[in-house]
Amino acid sequence: MIKSIVLIGSGNVATHLGLALKNAGCEIWQVYSPNAKHASVLAKKLKAKYTNHIESIFPEADLYIMAIKDDAINNLAQQLKLKDKIIVHTSGSASMDTLKGVSKHIGVFYPLQTFSKNKKIAITKVPFCIESNNKNTENLLLNLAYSISADVRKISSEQRKTLHVAAVFACNFTNHLFTISEKILKDHAISFDILKPLIHETIHKIDSHSPKEMQTGPAKRKDTKTIQAHLAFLKDYPEYRKIYMELSSSIGKS
Amino acid sequence: MIKSIVLIGSGNVATHLGLALKNAGCEIWQVYSPNAKHASVLAKKLKAKYTNHIESIFPEADLYIMAIKDDAINNLAQQLKLKDKIIVHTSGSASMDTLKGVSKHIGVFYPLQTFSKNKKIAITKVPFCIESNNKNTENLLLNLAYSISADVRKISSEQRKTLHVAAVFACNFTNHLFTISEKILKDHAISFDILKPLIHETIHKIDSHSPKEMQTGPAKRKDTKTIQAHLAFLKDYPEYRKIYMELSSSIGKS
Repeated sequence: MIKSIVLIGSGNVATHLGLALKNAGCEIWQVYSPNAKHASVLAKKLKAKYTNHIESIFPEADLYIMAIKDDAINNLAQQLKLKDKIIVHTSGSASMDTLKGVSKHIGVFYPLQTFSKNKKIAITKVPFCIESNNKNTENLLLNLAYSISADVRKISSEQRKTLHVAAVFACNFTNHLFTISEKILKDHAISFDILKPLIHETIHKIDSHSPKEMQTGPAKRKDTKTIQAHLAFLKDYPEYRKIYMELSSSIGKS
Repeated sequence: MIKSIVLIGSGNVATHLGLALKNAGCEIWQVYSPNAKHASVLAKKLKAKYTNHIESIFPEADLYIMAIKDDAINNLAQQLKLKDKIIVHTSGSASMDTLKGVSKHIGVFYPLQTFSKNKKIAITKVPFCIESNNKNTENLLLNLAYSISADVRKISSEQRKTLHVAAVFACNFTNHLFTISEKILKDHAISFDILKPLIHETIHKIDSHSPKEMQTGPAKRKDTKTIQAHLAFLKDYPEYRKIYMELSSSIGKS
């Protein structure tokens, strides 16, 4: 069982994870950050020690969690001397192999959620994506994840890549469609919040139905008259017009 | 004050509106539908009379609400003999002028929400878009809308067109992005519901922030390495690849 943890990183993911793991009964031994101030702030919340020197990282913890930027993982990991301790990263995009050679027991402990600084998240509902290079470590990580969340899944590095692409469509691009919508409304003196109840209902529907079944709108019902009217309306927005055509054509084909 | 109402139509909008107006103290005198069965089912719920003959529509109600398909509004309205009674339609896309000449008092009473048959909607939160060809009728309609919803707005036919385009982006296209996301995940043996907490958080954020400020992801941070990796991943999905490029480019410019 994993009891003692060293957190490498002091950002939003490290903070939310650290607090959840502490609440679940783990001991957070130490927080490392190159910025001593950042490390100390989080360490205080977790009643942990802190350091900003890599060589001062305690060598005897059960688990080392690297919650840092993707580009920094490999370089920092290579400086650790762990051998037979478990080390994981929390990245959605970095492959598990980023940690290859750092220890016999490597893995991924990826919470699929966006964490903001001062905003509470219901961590029990956050899906945790777990991966390891060996069965025993995988089980330890799965159990640890289950101690803080009800949604724990084995996800390979390859699957995590897929997840990332899918999340870009479902979240990043969705948000940009809201931005476009807000811009069009604003240009016509209408407040974007008039659309929020409709947006919430759209999202609410996919809780219980496949989005494919829930598709509505002019492109779905092949209402070319309305589509033409909308394209005429969008003549002053050439970029949005292209997006409108591309998405309508894709809806028409699906 | 508007007290007596005739409902023309018996679909989801007529049903939800009829029930809300009855609860607010209006008398629904009659329901008209070309299909007598449909008219009678809704009439029963509203303790109203019903008819499937246009010439049998009661001529003396305060308000006639046409909750029928856009294409059918003008033709049916022209057959009504109302003169000085108020007549409105509930369409998001049809212009108010669709009712021109039908009565001295015409207008629009458009609830900006998607209504499903057996699904309750918190009607007090539904934005009602009100328009009329005269001030007195506009005030009567605004008051009527306020009797069932806390969110009532004066919206011109021109603004409603804008709203419709904006809603296509924010709702129809958003739903299609979920469909794309689900398809990509399914092809890689991952269940779409792993993304739902993240989607909910994305939507939750726009309740209190402008979506423009909340944009994240590779296109926002101009992370070309990740974008290239995603485009390579999408080589088997040429249609989604085009959408990915179009939306990423648009995010990059905004």
